[in-house]
Amino acid sequence: MSGSRIYMDWNATAPLLTEAREALLSALDQVGNPSSVHGEGRAIRTLVESARRDVAALCGAQPASVTFTSGATEAANMVLTPDFRMGRTPLRIAKLYASAIEHPAVREGGRFAREDVCEVPVTSAGVVDGAALDALLASHDREAGLPMVAVMLANNETGIVQPIAEVAAIVRAHGGLLVVDAVQAAGRLPLSIEALGADFLIVSSHKIGGPKGAGALVARGEVMMPSALIRGGGQEKGHRSGTENAPALAGFGAAARVVAGNIDGRITAVAALRDRLEAEMQSSAPDVVIHGRDIARIGNTTFFTLPGLKAETGQIAFDLEGVALSAGSACSSGKVGQSHVLTAMGYDPRQGALRISIGETTTEAEIERCAAVFAKVAARRRSTGKAA
Amino acid sequence: MSGSRIYMDWNATAPLLTEAREALLSALDQVGNPSSVHGEGRAIRTLVESARRDVAALCGAQPASVTFTSGATEAANMVLTPDFRMGRTPLRIAKLYASAIEHPAVREGGRFAREDVCEVPVTSAGVVDGAALDALLASHDREAGLPMVAVMLANNETGIVQPIAEVAAIVRAHGGLLVVDAVQAAGRLPLSIEALGADFLIVSSHKIGGPKGAGALVARGEVMMPSALIRGGGQEKGHRSGTENAPALAGFGAAARVVAGNIDGRITAVAALRDRLEAEMQSSAPDVVIHGRDIARIGNTTFFTLPGLKAETGQIAFDLEGVALSAGSACSSGKVGQSHVLTAMGYDPRQGALRISIGETTTEAEIERCAAVFAKVAARRRSTGKAA
Repeated sequence: MSGSRIYMDWNATAPLLTEAREALLSALDQVGNPSSVHGEGRAIRTLVESARRDVAALCGAQPASVTFTSGATEAANMVLTPDFRMGRTPLRIAKLYASAIEHPAVREGGRFAREDVCEVPVTSAGVVDGAALDALLASHDREAGLPMVAVMLANNETGIVQPIAEVAAIVRAHGGLLVVDAVQAAGRLPLSIEALGADFLIVSSHKIGGPKGAGALVARGEVMMPSALIRGGGQEKGHRSGTENAPALAGFGAAARVVAGNIDGRITAVAALRDRLEAEMQSSAPDVVIHGRDIARIGNTTFFTLPGLKAETGQIAFDLEGVALSAGSACSSGKVGQSHVLTAMGYDPRQGALRISIGETTTEAEIERCAAVFAKVAARRRSTGKAA
Repeated sequence: MSGSRIYMDWNATAPLLTEAREALLSALDQVGNPSSVHGEGRAIRTLVESARRDVAALCGAQPASVTFTSGATEAANMVLTPDFRMGRTPLRIAKLYASAIEHPAVREGGRFAREDVCEVPVTSAGVVDGAALDALLASHDREAGLPMVAVMLANNETGIVQPIAEVAAIVRAHGGLLVVDAVQAAGRLPLSIEALGADFLIVSSHKIGGPKGAGALVARGEVMMPSALIRGGGQEKGHRSGTENAPALAGFGAAARVVAGNIDGRITAVAALRDRLEAEMQSSAPDVVIHGRDIARIGNTTFFTLPGLKAETGQIAFDLEGVALSAGSACSSGKVGQSHVLTAMGYDPRQGALRISIGETTTEAEIERCAAVFAKVAARRRSTGKAA
């Protein structure tokens, strides 16, 4: 390792923002359960409700429509269920139509039976195939219940932005529900549940610079809600029981406030760094394939394949040079699986791809060092790796 | 309010231990996803696995049998399910038999259908009725699946310790599974899943002085496990997906280490303070009813009724005098419901009861001030409250 480490794996987890750290610490020093009636409990409750307003604002939603969870995976499992309620009336969802590039938290289908989860294909450009979705929904049996569609706003591996407004129009035409995983998009694209036409958004605290251990299911209204996944004391209006993790939620709220502020300026600055890195990569290894480069992506992500370099090997090489990046997503314990996203896009997934993901504290010097490490790894591949 | 506040609601949430705070802060300053393969990810993974060993030690269990969750309520919802696996073989649980004094997180029955949850009565002493449990299990239809029994080790309102070894023998004789909510017992009684004869223990971080946002389902072995409640990236060996909340888990581990150390000395010291408070209460209001005083209780809890004083009124009176205590449990948003524990014990729950719960940083001076506030509230009741 030469010098200090460079963290370029923001899509796995982002460094904690100073503001989020302070909000968390301040809440940590207050004893109290937000459900307690005494002064201590009421003070902690205030922090939770303030965070709810901040997260709602990030999503262009009403605070009353925000249900806090322990993270995005829990929020996905909460909303992906056949059992909904419209007020007090049960509402049956018959099938889940999830795009082929969803995060495993969505692809696993939550509480739907395996046979009720259908895959919506993506084009070779890595974008959900609207015509295919339309055809799937046209053949949906509405007698059995409504269709639910899940398409993410920005893919965690490629960063490719999905055409949610178009998807929403198709879902609406077929009378379905639309769930949008906005985990990677939050803070990297302007976010409005109304403008997207989504019924539910899923967001995560630690992906936007808040603490781990907090997420939210954000609804367009308050009337239509999934049955509770976690039942008990009746917190979160009965939608999610368990003592609220007030310190993490306070940090989540603070992070939401930061990333929602000056979002255009922040996006532009990060994208400029990423584009500079990609230009240098292209220059030192003209054969590098940058997936999704020609279409709309969030500005912090580069997903690339270096011909002749296996992703696992590449990740270790970068790690040894002090650069933390990822081969696909960091979804389960130490496992580097084949990318289902590459497969869905029609690439041979065996060689794999590497993901560089940066953020607003990434510096020009780090970009330069990362580009130099890239050049070194790429050159080494040319001299020794062609046959590998 | 006179002077600083006195926090006497440890059973709702305990103040954060210094050691837990430090462990959390230290983890907070390390960026990384525990599932990432790079150096940062591996360092965070080490913290999670170290915490797992500490929580296992607290419960007298193997680290591999500890599944981390976002809290005890999630752990309860995870284990209370008809769908188990014995290795790869499905195992069906037909009914849940839960004691009448369980916490709502258990009483709600998790993923069991409402009609498959049976209540096990308690005696007027507040202790689960072994003969009644035996009779219920004798009439259980084993063809439909195994019976699951849930009895807590120490009740959250009364502090009364349940005869788990006796319950375990009954459950074993009927070939059932035993789930023990050890949330209030952890750190207040020596804990050993083997000695208790339980199949699963549920523990919570923030009730033992760790951070909010962490809990665990602890199994006796590794073979028999419930189906996952939260699916996705496959963390926690597939039993609980979602990025591990490493900072909270590090704090949980630190708290587990503290409370497992010198447990006998700590229990004795806290019980001495509690007993002194109860003696002073009895002296200033001889008609006070201290529920469960004559039987085994954890040493930090006093659950009492002052004739002529409604619990809600009493709680506000104590709060105004600077003492935070609780009317029943702090289980849902600001709601002060009638105590199902009092009802189960055969008391008229309308007057309710107040709970004082203390811990190891409670001081003699705080006990004295609490006793003085108690005397004041009791006297005021005598002059004005008889007819209330």
